[in-house]
Amino acid sequence: MASRRYEDLGIGSKAAEARVRLLNRDGSFNVRRKGLPFFSWFSGYHYLISIPWWKFNLMILIAYIAINALFGAVYTAIGLSGLAGIDGHTLPEQYLQAVFFSTQTFTTVGFGRIAPVGTAANTAAALESLTGLLCFAFATGLVYGRFSRPIAKIIFSRSALIAPYENITGFMFRVANQRSNQLIDVSATVTLSRAETNGAGHRTRKFYPLELERPSVTFFHLSWTVVHPIDQNSPLFGVTKEQLDESEAEFLILLKGFDDVFSQTVHTRTSYKSKEVLYGHRFKGIIRTGSDGMTEIDLDKIHDYERVV
Amino acid sequence: MASRRYEDLGIGSKAAEARVRLLNRDGSFNVRRKGLPFFSWFSGYHYLISIPWWKFNLMILIAYIAINALFGAVYTAIGLSGLAGIDGHTLPEQYLQAVFFSTQTFTTVGFGRIAPVGTAANTAAALESLTGLLCFAFATGLVYGRFSRPIAKIIFSRSALIAPYENITGFMFRVANQRSNQLIDVSATVTLSRAETNGAGHRTRKFYPLELERPSVTFFHLSWTVVHPIDQNSPLFGVTKEQLDESEAEFLILLKGFDDVFSQTVHTRTSYKSKEVLYGHRFKGIIRTGSDGMTEIDLDKIHDYERVV
Amino acid sequence: MASRRYEDLGIGSKAAEARVRLLNRDGSFNVRRKGLPFFSWFSGYHYLISIPWWKFNLMILIAYIAINALFGAVYTAIGLSGLAGIDGHTLPEQYLQAVFFSTQTFTTVGFGRIAPVGTAANTAAALESLTGLLCFAFATGLVYGRFSRPIAKIIFSRSALIAPYENITGFMFRVANQRSNQLIDVSATVTLSRAETNGAGHRTRKFYPLELERPSVTFFHLSWTVVHPIDQNSPLFGVTKEQLDESEAEFLILLKGFDDVFSQTVHTRTSYKSKEVLYGHRFKGIIRTGSDGMTEIDLDKIHDYERVV
Amino acid sequence: MASRRYEDLGIGSKAAEARVRLLNRDGSFNVRRKGLPFFSWFSGYHYLISIPWWKFNLMILIAYIAINALFGAVYTAIGLSGLAGIDGHTLPEQYLQAVFFSTQTFTTVGFGRIAPVGTAANTAAALESLTGLLCFAFATGLVYGRFSRPIAKIIFSRSALIAPYENITGFMFRVANQRSNQLIDVSATVTLSRAETNGAGHRTRKFYPLELERPSVTFFHLSWTVVHPIDQNSPLFGVTKEQLDESEAEFLILLKGFDDVFSQTVHTRTSYKSKEVLYGHRFKGIIRTGSDGMTEIDLDKIHDYERVV
Repeated sequence: MASRRYEDLGIGSKAAEARVRLLNRDGSFNVRRKGLPFFSWFSGYHYLISIPWWKFNLMILIAYIAINALFGAVYTAIGLSGLAGIDGHTLPEQYLQAVFFSTQTFTTVGFGRIAPVGTAANTAAALESLTGLLCFAFATGLVYGRFSRPIAKIIFSRSALIAPYENITGFMFRVANQRSNQLIDVSATVTLSRAETNGAGHRTRKFYPLELERPSVTFFHLSWTVVHPIDQNSPLFGVTKEQLDESEAEFLILLKGFDDVFSQTVHTRTSYKSKEVLYGHRFKGIIRTGSDGMTEIDLDKIHDYERVV
Repeated sequence: MASRRYEDLGIGSKAAEARVRLLNRDGSFNVRRKGLPFFSWFSGYHYLISIPWWKFNLMILIAYIAINALFGAVYTAIGLSGLAGIDGHTLPEQYLQAVFFSTQTFTTVGFGRIAPVGTAANTAAALESLTGLLCFAFATGLVYGRFSRPIAKIIFSRSALIAPYENITGFMFRVANQRSNQLIDVSATVTLSRAETNGAGHRTRKFYPLELERPSVTFFHLSWTVVHPIDQNSPLFGVTKEQLDESEAEFLILLKGFDDVFSQTVHTRTSYKSKEVLYGHRFKGIIRTGSDGMTEIDLDKIHDYERVV
Repeated sequence: MASRRYEDLGIGSKAAEARVRLLNRDGSFNVRRKGLPFFSWFSGYHYLISIPWWKFNLMILIAYIAINALFGAVYTAIGLSGLAGIDGHTLPEQYLQAVFFSTQTFTTVGFGRIAPVGTAANTAAALESLTGLLCFAFATGLVYGRFSRPIAKIIFSRSALIAPYENITGFMFRVANQRSNQLIDVSATVTLSRAETNGAGHRTRKFYPLELERPSVTFFHLSWTVVHPIDQNSPLFGVTKEQLDESEAEFLILLKGFDDVFSQTVHTRTSYKSKEVLYGHRFKGIIRTGSDGMTEIDLDKIHDYERVV
Repeated sequence: MASRRYEDLGIGSKAAEARVRLLNRDGSFNVRRKGLPFFSWFSGYHYLISIPWWKFNLMILIAYIAINALFGAVYTAIGLSGLAGIDGHTLPEQYLQAVFFSTQTFTTVGFGRIAPVGTAANTAAALESLTGLLCFAFATGLVYGRFSRPIAKIIFSRSALIAPYENITGFMFRVANQRSNQLIDVSATVTLSRAETNGAGHRTRKFYPLELERPSVTFFHLSWTVVHPIDQNSPLFGVTKEQLDESEAEFLILLKGFDDVFSQTVHTRTSYKSKEVLYGHRFKGIIRTGSDGMTEIDLDKIHDYERVV
């Protein structure tokens, strides 16, 4: 079937001459997108659930200060008479007290030592407390969005290896789950991308899905060495290290699995450029049986390999 | 297999004589539904998570004003004695102060400068603050519902093209992801719907799924040209532009993919009427390699095509 | 394959002699479960997200009253000196004021006209406001749980029909989507369950999955007539209405689809007992083209059938 | 196909000599993981949504006390002048009142009897009320995370049985749903893991997926006896109880299904060691028809078996 031999991956073969890698090690794509209309709010949401917690909390603090500085200015503009209980003598003192009143309104703590009087200040306070509640609904949504976003933390071996495997040769890399939660029904997809020169002398980039010895595992609580056997049907058959480099080969990896904690499917991506592929090496074992008969895995050694004699 | 040649799509062939398109460009269906019992709350939820943010916030503001106007009336009806700290002399003044007290109760800010006294006012305030909390729980649920709803923003080329493709002819259209988030395992389904006259001279609408050169792509970070090769098994084989128009042909498109950010499957639909299908044209390339070796895609040009000589 | 001819459905054939239907029209199972340990909280959650809104809100109101009645008693027990601002002269008056103070604490509105003084009252208030926040977190979770639970509202025709279909005979029923949201990739599973007498004269219940003319439709915005063609491979081949009744036949239906709004898969179940199956009738059309060329569906007529002459 | 006969399950065959079971009865893995960088927050989230409710609430109470003890110290450090309304004479009395003021600020109840005065106390209060709101957003997210996490409660029979089955012999175990919610499209995967001595005298652990008579059931509202027929293709063919014990055999079970209430896929795992497998026994029936014709299942008897004569 045609789609087995030449899978497009959404990349036209005209995009072939790219000299940088298509997919970064962290799974992001090396693509520049032009003509996108504008920075939509969605990207904002995506951004806010992706940043680290310290950054998220810092942004909330900054927004909190900004909102209160603004509402403090509004109350100051309305004037001293709008806030019963205020006792500052200078304008800066009054502004500062208005800011503190604003924080009490925005968070709905409402001590009442300072309280709005008159239509203008009461209207401003009514709007501010509503704004506070909506911002808080927003923050709650974001916090839960951050919580409920399942992210697989898969460790990929730094190098992929090409080495004798059973009776033939195999292309292989090793993966393990960094987290303590379980991944189930994990499957791998490996695609070889390389530049080829066609009959007309035109150099285009082609994509070949690589058959795997085992495309999926039911459980994934230890490490998994994903193997593509280089038999006669493999596009890697007879390819030397030099040819691999010359063709700017890149191996695109997609791992899918079902996350036990979130009950959702998770994905992770990475790639190996030809310079990250080593010939004639195999992975060192990282699983052993402890003295108490229990299975042990040492994730520190997942990248370790050794020369095949 | 029968279901491959004539797929019903949930539309009986008796619904065949419709002269307007079945599926609008934005993916909504052109169907009038009668006999639906009533506007259930569910539709309300659907509505509230689908409208734009400015509309959502405006509706919340209007609801906020309405609720406080109502509770303000309740407190005014209970009387001046129910609210300690109120000092309005006229009824409108008192009502306005009661409304502001209501906002302080509803948002649970509770400054306390005005406070309920006596059973009636206290009961009203107790109910209002509970109502406020529940409305806020509602709003939080809606805000999160809006956040967590994954929506694919796929750009479809304005026209579908029929042009020479490899050694034969192909029906094709082009799609790209407008968002910066990744879609994975994207698959396309294309169904041809056209009116046909059967032996008895009765004109009915038939549906034919079209085989695609590649029904799915693993990654979708650039554009994808979806191609149906018009070979001898295709219902489009030998069909001219005039015949296509005459049969009121419509191409129904469904795209599915897995959204990277939301970890959920997303769908998008569209259709091409025969008048949106051009013969003898092909798409212009929109992917090129930048001077720094990086792949570039220009989404502004996704609709661009050129005559095939 | 054995599993095609005799599918267990999780029901052992020893459960065969049941004379009531296995599956009710609303999709619930007619099974009595014994030995279940106790009413776990989960069932509570399930219950609270399944009941109608008026019941949900009523339960919240009752819980609110109960909690405040309780905390009111605590504050009264602590004594008048614990609450500054209280002015009741009789115990009932004091209790009522303590209850109102409790509502102000629980909802965190905290007017402050009545405020806790001393360690006992302050501790009680500190615990009550925390309780209030947690209850509210609970309520928010429940409200969102109620929102985000996708429920398909599929209308099934009241009767299933057995009638001439194309060149042979078919078992058929009709379904439509009652909601305005779209269901995509809807598939149907139909299983015939009937009592049979085996060689040893023992009467057991057997289950046969029925092949469908089309097991799934891509779109489901109109009605869908699900058809099982009664050919020679069908367990219904040559079966008369009397034999169907005698064998206590029941047709178990499962419909699955992808909900457009919730981006989740939804299920719905129902069954037809032999008495709900009519021979020699077919469904009346409910789809027609309006004067403006638009397709119309009349959901009121989904149950309508007519005698086949 | 190689992957059918020898499925790796993510466990290298070098991990073979483990003498303890791979998978515990409760579905957790018997693996020691080394080299994991540190206890990431994620594990914290996982922990907080997995613990029982009493523990969750207790932890919230402890955090509440700790935060208020801390902020109480801050207000005390700022001094008596920072809190209007405080009237303690000794430092402990003042600290206690500061703690109570802190609870009123943190929960945003803000009675106002004690209220912050001056920049230092106001700033601390502004930060505390923001902290309170964020903690509460956190708690709401956790509460909903606890609610929305679908967990299957499947009861597995304590023993697996090997007994005559139809004309041959079968390996079987029995499962039932402990909850009242429905599971749909439940499928089972059974893998035999056993130690084998290869030609070179090296003892390694191999994994064999076992073919099931029925790998899935559409409905799962009663019990399901999962059966692997031991025919000539089975790795259990001709294997005696002694050989099973000697090879440290373990049957790894994975059950998947779609939860009706949560509209999500759920998983559950368990295993049977060879000592939990009984030869020559079969399960006693637990399903019967009540006097009213209704089907009854007695979950108390799910483990019951009887000798096959």
